[in-house]
Amino acid sequence: MVRAEIITIGDEILYGQILDTNTQWISLELDKLGIKTVRKSSVGDQKDEIVQILQEAQKRADVVFITGGLGPTKDDLTKKILADFFDCTLAYHAQALQDVTEFFAKRGRELSDINRDQALLPAKCTFIPNKQGTAPAMWFDELETIWVSMPGVPFEMKSIMETEVLPRLVNHFKLPVIVHQVVKTVGIGESYLSDLIQDWELQLPAHLKLAYLPSLGIVKLRLTGFGDSAENLHQQISEAFAQVMPLIKSYVFGYEKDELADVVGKLLVSKHATLSVAESCTGGYLASQFTQHAGCSDYFLGGVLAYANDVKMSQLGVSAQILSNDGAVSEACIRAMATGVRDLTGSVYSLATSGIAGPAGGTPEKPVGTIWIALAHPTGVITRKLTLGGTRVQNIHLTSLTAINLLRRFLLNDLAE
Amino acid sequence: MVRAEIITIGDEILYGQILDTNTQWISLELDKLGIKTVRKSSVGDQKDEIVQILQEAQKRADVVFITGGLGPTKDDLTKKILADFFDCTLAYHAQALQDVTEFFAKRGRELSDINRDQALLPAKCTFIPNKQGTAPAMWFDELETIWVSMPGVPFEMKSIMETEVLPRLVNHFKLPVIVHQVVKTVGIGESYLSDLIQDWELQLPAHLKLAYLPSLGIVKLRLTGFGDSAENLHQQISEAFAQVMPLIKSYVFGYEKDELADVVGKLLVSKHATLSVAESCTGGYLASQFTQHAGCSDYFLGGVLAYANDVKMSQLGVSAQILSNDGAVSEACIRAMATGVRDLTGSVYSLATSGIAGPAGGTPEKPVGTIWIALAHPTGVITRKLTLGGTRVQNIHLTSLTAINLLRRFLLNDLAE
Repeated sequence: MVRAEIITIGDEILYGQILDTNTQWISLELDKLGIKTVRKSSVGDQKDEIVQILQEAQKRADVVFITGGLGPTKDDLTKKILADFFDCTLAYHAQALQDVTEFFAKRGRELSDINRDQALLPAKCTFIPNKQGTAPAMWFDELETIWVSMPGVPFEMKSIMETEVLPRLVNHFKLPVIVHQVVKTVGIGESYLSDLIQDWELQLPAHLKLAYLPSLGIVKLRLTGFGDSAENLHQQISEAFAQVMPLIKSYVFGYEKDELADVVGKLLVSKHATLSVAESCTGGYLASQFTQHAGCSDYFLGGVLAYANDVKMSQLGVSAQILSNDGAVSEACIRAMATGVRDLTGSVYSLATSGIAGPAGGTPEKPVGTIWIALAHPTGVITRKLTLGGTRVQNIHLTSLTAINLLRRFLLNDLAE
Repeated sequence: MVRAEIITIGDEILYGQILDTNTQWISLELDKLGIKTVRKSSVGDQKDEIVQILQEAQKRADVVFITGGLGPTKDDLTKKILADFFDCTLAYHAQALQDVTEFFAKRGRELSDINRDQALLPAKCTFIPNKQGTAPAMWFDELETIWVSMPGVPFEMKSIMETEVLPRLVNHFKLPVIVHQVVKTVGIGESYLSDLIQDWELQLPAHLKLAYLPSLGIVKLRLTGFGDSAENLHQQISEAFAQVMPLIKSYVFGYEKDELADVVGKLLVSKHATLSVAESCTGGYLASQFTQHAGCSDYFLGGVLAYANDVKMSQLGVSAQILSNDGAVSEACIRAMATGVRDLTGSVYSLATSGIAGPAGGTPEKPVGTIWIALAHPTGVITRKLTLGGTRVQNIHLTSLTAINLLRRFLLNDLAE
């Protein structure tokens, strides 16, 4: 197994001024090649800290990626430190000098001394061109380790990795095969899911590893396989997931990068069906789950944001009697909202939400987190009462997910009632 | 200077399946307290790797933050490793057990063995409650270092940090006096803002440091003061901001944690005014910017999600002629949408959006990113055409911010026309 370490250099990342997205991108690319990232680190623009992390990485990794610290300004030290670390001097590199000269000439800008010095490279490095910027990348085969130093600007780094570094890695290392597959679930918590599938998990072969990746309302199951053949691993992982599927089928909404609302939207399109929404407590968030995805206009007609009771009455036909007897947070109201918006838009299905998202507005009978959802369909209305315990934003999110999941399970004929 | 190290544990971050945003957030919070982050690291769910990073961090840092690896499933090892590392055993913690029992009881769910075991904590730790989830956090004062272990779920970690950990850090360490103030701007890009205020920036005293913190559509200006007296620093920073305010006044919508839609909502409430929306391309996202904030029911009446043209006609009274002659993405249509929803709901103000968010749907005359917004008010309608160049989600976000900002500037009598 080739072991990789990724190091970002720069005070701006260390102190949080910039969010580092480079290391995630690099590790995903390495993962595809079967190179295992074993450590990610960020250090500041301090010589002793940079030298220390290089020394540590050398002991742990077969290949070390370094981003940042190659710009022309004086707090960027990486090149000098690398030259010292590999016991060589900095010297002008002919091709690098030509590249940086052309880069400025092409843009009609003068080449300053500071920019000319970007062609100063440690004598032991292999020059790697940077087509997108002025700081070249460097490849070292020293101290029984491969070292790749790249600029920290994301689009420059990505271009260098894709065109130069990844092909060199494939040539240099004998790479194993790692395969991941992700199954995404909704409507079951991590611990319940774990209880449900623990017998299956315990009998997984040693070369397949399971991970739970939870976020609010969604739990992803990831199986990672290690072996020689990607094809075999894909098949083994697929078979392993197929074994557990009867237990979790109702919760599984998708795979890999699938998103719940998009999956449900595609189900609607496949049935030539349309959707509208009547939102009170979710206040537009439910609709936005659908409309953030391209292609939603194929099934999403629109709806009513019925925040005020007047709007519930005038637009959705909720009766004054329901609002005074049962209140806006009631089964009678949610039923009227769902049928009202379905009638109004002529959609095949509609979803409705009404509840107390919090933090204020609760009563002893209807505490914060009491929320009704409904699905109106051609032959009836299905309602659910939720009792949520999160913050306002969490309650809105979970209500929306639950409503979308209600529609998903109805479309799949997978509802208990 | 107190030195901090931040460690994230989890294969999902190491392999790039999730983007780590926790470490950035933590380092920004530490920075505000005058605690210097000296290293950030990610390691996988492997005992030897976790032990190694703990040993390294102990040598470098006064305080170590560990996120991740505390969930109920068995790939989460952190607690056992911490118990071994600090030479103690795991034992049920009475308060932790009560908390997790109540967490499940409140939600009407059964407490499984796996969940009960979340109350198993290393005997040497100080228990730190997690109000948002089931995995408690832990504080250790061992090996001449403070260790804080927290769950990796961002909203749980942030809540624990804000309510428990940051106050403990202030009590434990003798921290220097650092004062931050943030002014938030909308509607001007970072480089334009920088050009506008560069003379002011250059004459700032040396102990006041300016940072630009940009996000999509919003640029925060943060002044940080270093000194002995918080009171003096607050006054000096306030005076510095007061000097620059004439230049940037129109862009400034708030301070510190103010959020644009909430600021505008409070402006509406102060004027006893109400708002409705008619959304096409923003698909509910505009409304959700308001409705995510508690108190929105004091001014937000609701609105219409007019995704399909039929809904634009039937609900908002957009004429068939406008849709066929001008199209849904036109000044005539947006004007009709804004006045339509204002009439429908009886609100004082209304906002409307219609455009091509992308990635498909563009034409040579109306390319992707062509978006109209409108504000209807008691004596007329103001329209704006936007030409955006982002992804679908970015375009929806920027359109919503721009519409909300249009209303803000109208309410403040700060519009050019």
